[in-house]
Amino acid sequence: MTTTIAASQRSDAAIFGNLPATLDWMGDFDGELLLLDQTILPNEVAHLRCNDVETVWEAIKVLRVRGAPAIGVAAAYGVFLGIRGDWRLEAEQFVLKLEKVAQYLSDARPTAVNLAWAVRGVRSAALAARDGGSRAMAEAALAAAREIHREDIEMCRRIGEVGAHLVPDGGGVLTHCNAGALATSAYGTALSPLYVAHRSGRRFRVFASETRPLLQGARLTAFELASAGIDVTVICDGAVASLMHAGEIQMAIVGADRIAANGDTANKIGTYSHALAAKHHEVPFYVAAPHSTFDLSLGSASEIPIEQRSETEVRELGGRRWITSLARCRNPAFDVTPAGLIRGIVTDRGLSEPVTIEKIQEILSNGAWRGPG
Amino acid sequence: MTTTIAASQRSDAAIFGNLPATLDWMGDFDGELLLLDQTILPNEVAHLRCNDVETVWEAIKVLRVRGAPAIGVAAAYGVFLGIRGDWRLEAEQFVLKLEKVAQYLSDARPTAVNLAWAVRGVRSAALAARDGGSRAMAEAALAAAREIHREDIEMCRRIGEVGAHLVPDGGGVLTHCNAGALATSAYGTALSPLYVAHRSGRRFRVFASETRPLLQGARLTAFELASAGIDVTVICDGAVASLMHAGEIQMAIVGADRIAANGDTANKIGTYSHALAAKHHEVPFYVAAPHSTFDLSLGSASEIPIEQRSETEVRELGGRRWITSLARCRNPAFDVTPAGLIRGIVTDRGLSEPVTIEKIQEILSNGAWRGPG
Repeated sequence: MTTTIAASQRSDAAIFGNLPATLDWMGDFDGELLLLDQTILPNEVAHLRCNDVETVWEAIKVLRVRGAPAIGVAAAYGVFLGIRGDWRLEAEQFVLKLEKVAQYLSDARPTAVNLAWAVRGVRSAALAARDGGSRAMAEAALAAAREIHREDIEMCRRIGEVGAHLVPDGGGVLTHCNAGALATSAYGTALSPLYVAHRSGRRFRVFASETRPLLQGARLTAFELASAGIDVTVICDGAVASLMHAGEIQMAIVGADRIAANGDTANKIGTYSHALAAKHHEVPFYVAAPHSTFDLSLGSASEIPIEQRSETEVRELGGRRWITSLARCRNPAFDVTPAGLIRGIVTDRGLSEPVTIEKIQEILSNGAWRGPG
Repeated sequence: MTTTIAASQRSDAAIFGNLPATLDWMGDFDGELLLLDQTILPNEVAHLRCNDVETVWEAIKVLRVRGAPAIGVAAAYGVFLGIRGDWRLEAEQFVLKLEKVAQYLSDARPTAVNLAWAVRGVRSAALAARDGGSRAMAEAALAAAREIHREDIEMCRRIGEVGAHLVPDGGGVLTHCNAGALATSAYGTALSPLYVAHRSGRRFRVFASETRPLLQGARLTAFELASAGIDVTVICDGAVASLMHAGEIQMAIVGADRIAANGDTANKIGTYSHALAAKHHEVPFYVAAPHSTFDLSLGSASEIPIEQRSETEVRELGGRRWITSLARCRNPAFDVTPAGLIRGIVTDRGLSEPVTIEKIQEILSNGAWRGPG
């Protein structure tokens, strides 16, 4: 089912203002998944109503929902939607359907780690309830999806609480790409400290670098912060160093795709450039990410593979070709910022500052962070 | 007259390959000005035939011709086109027409220094021939325009000869924006050493950073280098630092809008960011510009004003809005790269390396550069 509805008012308007929810589960066993359609942002704001797994699969495939955590949560509910109607089947047949649905969803974006992780989690929870029969398995799947959803919100909220004190009152904050509420169930990672600081009354201005080639900063970060009532200004990626020189930026905070054991951080292309400029201008540069983003099997950046994406993303924009076919394009999707350029890493388990192997290990072994002080 | 013709084969194909001429004067007193229409590049390649001053004025106004030197040459011919048909008038009336045409053209882009300078030059040459009558004044105007054209080519060619030895054989060269043949009568400034090095047999790869917001690197630099048979790859501005880290760039060379007495250089937004990355990775960073770009009345960068352009250039691209109206945009057109980040400045009067007040003064007092050695 692919009808859409206008964005509804959210219950946590005190934090997020008019920002529509990235996703939400409406109702109970007979409920439906609402997904904010991010392909039409910021020009149109509408939620997609998902009542079947095919709609969820398509939404993941074409990036209506994006950001590893948000994809994971959507897929978790997707598993439930795929098996809900079959709860009158015999358990054996029901499990066959569950396996089929899990495989189908996992293939929507094969390289998305959170997607596969979330699907596995819901599948395991359902199988664990097998003794209770098909209906019990279906209910366990919904409960597991809700738990993954709740945990994602909680983890992001903790990142915000850990990092909020770093946000300079009255200052300018740079962020790159979109590591915000739109990429997670709520709060986001890099943007979570900004939401928490804003709620606590700090006043600051955010500079969102547009993030070529796909413009997530311009399209998504500007939309979500402005919707939440936070002062945000979009600049081209090439203008960041110049604004730092002019003294307009007092802090930078970005998300991460993968962090090595020593703190070297892979993130959206352009991050490294901003980090170099921050170092030169003595602007503290922070990374924010859940503990699950650390890959301790990687000693350092040199072991992080960099995905090269299609040159079409550079060559075409707004349906128009900008570059002669005689010229090549290169489109590295990520770059690596070495730990030495990072002032601190904000996680749901605490703040690693300085960024060293030892400090990272200490933070990660903390378990859940229990609040300040 | 606004008919266009397909780009014609050029006489200097040994250097420029299939690159169409930026502008050319075809014929003599009854001739016409051909202007490459840069608003439709790279998707269409066509020359605009200018037989009257209105067509030249419109071409300057809407950026069919762009780049300070090219605008100056186009305007010079424009003065002649504006008075040519009036050579049978009495001298007094002819001079009135000349003044009117000169004023009209100067207003096409009020802040373009080269435009006003070229118009003044042609006007003065015509007035100096007043004793010979109107026809003599008109002929003097054409001769002056041709001289400005010839001098521009010569100055750019010299920049190339001064800087060609800096181009690393077998290496990667970064450039930003378009300081090329398309911005001048031929050769360009930053790209001139690349053309000369290429002709002399050096083989290298150019990385053209796309140069948001107006994409001159993607649209124009890629087109002109590829047309000339030089290996060119377009990358997003944010990918530059990452490619330097990967060891793919051995030299950077950019143009300049204004250079202070100490070598601080104002150039297209994004230049400073690339210069910081070059410094960090020990990639030599060069600026190339004619001696007329130096403004010795400015002691340093802090005195160079930075033009803020319309936010629409950031907000819209390809006829589409990418940013919510709730967010602001900032669009500084230039940034300043301090002399300390610049390895050398390539001019038509020689190479200033290192970049110091003393060395710059020495170079500029050289007069015309007479060749290597």
